[in-house]
Amino acid sequence: MSASSNCVLYAGAKPVFADINPETYNIDPASIRKLITPRTKAIVAVDFTGQAVELDEIRKICKEHNLLLIEDAAHAIGTTYKGQPVGSLADMTCFSFHPVKTVTGGEGGAITTNDEKLYRHLMRLRTHGITRDPEEMVHPTDALWYNEQVELGFNYRMTDFQAALLLS
Amino acid sequence: MSASSNCVLYAGAKPVFADINPETYNIDPASIRKLITPRTKAIVAVDFTGQAVELDEIRKICKEHNLLLIEDAAHAIGTTYKGQPVGSLADMTCFSFHPVKTVTGGEGGAITTNDEKLYRHLMRLRTHGITRDPEEMVHPTDALWYNEQVELGFNYRMTDFQAALLLS
Repeated sequence: MSASSNCVLYAGAKPVFADINPETYNIDPASIRKLITPRTKAIVAVDFTGQAVELDEIRKICKEHNLLLIEDAAHAIGTTYKGQPVGSLADMTCFSFHPVKTVTGGEGGAITTNDEKLYRHLMRLRTHGITRDPEEMVHPTDALWYNEQVELGFNYRMTDFQAALLLS
Repeated sequence: MSASSNCVLYAGAKPVFADINPETYNIDPASIRKLITPRTKAIVAVDFTGQAVELDEIRKICKEHNLLLIEDAAHAIGTTYKGQPVGSLADMTCFSFHPVKTVTGGEGGAITTNDEKLYRHLMRLRTHGITRDPEEMVHPTDALWYNEQVELGFNYRMTDFQAALLLS
């Protein structure tokens, strides 16, 4: 489970651990409520062993405190919550294609979001913070050869043949 | 070339740019000398378009100032310097297997080092800072099932089929 807390450390923030519901091993919304401070920015909730977290209650907490909900659905491709697939209910939902997961691409993963601003940001971050969209550039141009690096990004692209394995 | 400076930012440090030799487009050792301060930790030197940097002179600067030499040989698989292959001459040499490079694995890369301590550190960093070696553990055990996360690492493993493509 280290990835779910390491992502917070990568961002330069401090992970605060909430307790779990001993019946499901999933994060306990009552425990989350006790830990929120004005410095809290987001909730990272893990769908442990493929069971969806209590999304209604956690989304309510996020709305009340203006927090981002990042759902770690690494175990939970195909899981539904009240009839809706996970990946459609949080601000961002992360899936894993690691070899021991439900569906694999060798390594890698995917993030779903319904927020266009987050989507564009994620697309830049995965390829060195580079954009080809003049609207996102500091020095806009229509030149087709021009790429602009507008922020600190990463090299997180997946290979075509990983995608082919995923689709198979 | 953003990767060569982004790696410094990822580490929370400040990249300082040295000038190039206009004949080779490679980093100019005289320019490096002018920029060294007591806060300098390492030199990142790029073998531009497959030409080795001036390794003798840069290694001398590193030795004088106790700096680490990280050679970015993304363009330079197969390059030699005074008869010796790059990858054997710096503290760490980084190669790239990106699709536009000399040899490709789809994505990915490799780092060579002759320093066992750095090697062990790199091996931990690429897989979440996890070790299975009791000598590296805070709570050593011989239990075969036990993995210990001893530092903040990343998910930077290459898939088997990328390696197969590389070997082909």
